[in-house]
Amino acid sequence: MTEKPAAGRILLSVTGMYPQRWYELLSRARPVVLEPEGEADPTIHYAVVWKQKRGVLKRLPNLKVIFSAGAGVDHLLADPELPDVPIVRVVAENLTQYMVEYVSWRVLDHHRQGFAYRAQQAQKIWHEPHQPPAGEVAVGIMGLGELGGAAARALLALGFKVNGWSRREKRVEGVTTFHGEAGLTPFLNATDILVVLLPLTPATEGIIDHSVLKRLRQNGPLGGPCLVNAGRGRLQKEADILRALEEGVLKEASLDVFETEPLPEKSPLWTHPKVFVTPHAAATSDAAQLVPLMLAQIEAFERGEPLRNVVDREAGY
Amino acid sequence: MTEKPAAGRILLSVTGMYPQRWYELLSRARPVVLEPEGEADPTIHYAVVWKQKRGVLKRLPNLKVIFSAGAGVDHLLADPELPDVPIVRVVAENLTQYMVEYVSWRVLDHHRQGFAYRAQQAQKIWHEPHQPPAGEVAVGIMGLGELGGAAARALLALGFKVNGWSRREKRVEGVTTFHGEAGLTPFLNATDILVVLLPLTPATEGIIDHSVLKRLRQNGPLGGPCLVNAGRGRLQKEADILRALEEGVLKEASLDVFETEPLPEKSPLWTHPKVFVTPHAAATSDAAQLVPLMLAQIEAFERGEPLRNVVDREAGY
Repeated sequence: MTEKPAAGRILLSVTGMYPQRWYELLSRARPVVLEPEGEADPTIHYAVVWKQKRGVLKRLPNLKVIFSAGAGVDHLLADPELPDVPIVRVVAENLTQYMVEYVSWRVLDHHRQGFAYRAQQAQKIWHEPHQPPAGEVAVGIMGLGELGGAAARALLALGFKVNGWSRREKRVEGVTTFHGEAGLTPFLNATDILVVLLPLTPATEGIIDHSVLKRLRQNGPLGGPCLVNAGRGRLQKEADILRALEEGVLKEASLDVFETEPLPEKSPLWTHPKVFVTPHAAATSDAAQLVPLMLAQIEAFERGEPLRNVVDREAGY
Repeated sequence: MTEKPAAGRILLSVTGMYPQRWYELLSRARPVVLEPEGEADPTIHYAVVWKQKRGVLKRLPNLKVIFSAGAGVDHLLADPELPDVPIVRVVAENLTQYMVEYVSWRVLDHHRQGFAYRAQQAQKIWHEPHQPPAGEVAVGIMGLGELGGAAARALLALGFKVNGWSRREKRVEGVTTFHGEAGLTPFLNATDILVVLLPLTPATEGIIDHSVLKRLRQNGPLGGPCLVNAGRGRLQKEADILRALEEGVLKEASLDVFETEPLPEKSPLWTHPKVFVTPHAAATSDAAQLVPLMLAQIEAFERGEPLRNVVDREAGY
């Protein structure tokens, strides 16, 4: 009979989130060390991190797996001293559900002319503008991962035409897909409502610029294209969005993420009549959903099973 | 060889709609007479009507079928001199699609706290209120006909819990159904967002009153119940809605229909911060969709086949 090895401890290193809830939920199953404790601790085998302090992970001699506490891993990969162990990005069902709700809500609000109706109500105007049915409107989703795929299915069920674009070729049933640099222009040209769900990588930073916005379908059924960004703020160039709105190249925008968060008080986006602002609230990572998924992966890993949802560092997601 | 009987002519009697488009589409297939022409004309076998002039139909000696140009038939049944011929209510796929879009849009706007976020944006407030996922929110649909059933399916696909209430017992897959007077209180008690898609009949007129609103779930996940009326304006008592909003018994309302339409300029609904007004625009009957369905029914009828979607006059829909 061999002795069961001691369970590896978990380092919890989260900034910009409340660590208490994570600590409480993780520590029900395993010993947890809260950073700044645990410096170079050889009993730590796992780390759960969000915007971790630079270099902290590198100094753990027996670190085996890093878990990201959020869906994006750009915060993690930004650490120049990141050790060479697998990074696991856990996506809770809840996160996908929240994102599907947010995307459906914002797409419907642009499609059903919420901006126009709210302006009319403020002036007590009883007027019905032309309303195309969803089947005449094409939503284009940039980023066809777990969130983009789920959003596409919900929009198809609501009756929209759906296009998708991704860096590498992907297929989603019912979706007209495009990929790579060569696919970008035909994708944009066929899109009335652009939904951005890309990861933030060196290749995608600032991708939503004037040149992208002006290629969206200009003579579509809604009288102009709309933008929904629920990915990352640094995917977009806010000066270009404002310019495109000014020129009429872009009709309206729903922005959940911003180049600087919280959105600075002086930003003209706050008061723009064609912009709807939410405070990075499209889809919140819920510790109660994520912790059991992380613990299940740790247990499987210790039984020798492969990790799931491992980040491709080169691709950045 | 028997002579083919001359095709019966169609009387077109629509007020409050533009008759030109109907005239043009119908007359491509059959001779059409536009009211006030056609008085007591024996060659008229069919009538396509919307808020027809009282008594006009009664004076047609050979009228065989009446078609309603809209989904509701309360306008038709209000004619005290209505002749005893079948009334067919044609529902275009487009109408159902439009209604599903409107209901999904308004339910998501209440669920995802659009009212709160728009108020926050106006004050440049970056704050994320607690957001329950759709699975914790119960939408209750009053009226489980073609439109209510389709709306229920779309809301289930978006992740909501769905309750349904109808006068007579009905079943919709995935929906918890209630019926009749006895079922109303348990239905309302379990509902966070009430969606009204009832027909207007003597039994439903004014049904959305203070006593109904105060029975909605008061301690639900959204901090108070919301109302969406996309049925008929005279289903609701607007004074009661305003009182319920004032008392906090009702949190917010999206109203597409009103006791008097267009909504009078003096109505406090226009400027209420918790009310969203649209001008009876949830689902428009599109003549291009309805006319082919009417013509197909006329042809089938002339071949001796039974009519479909015949109105039950006693029930009123």
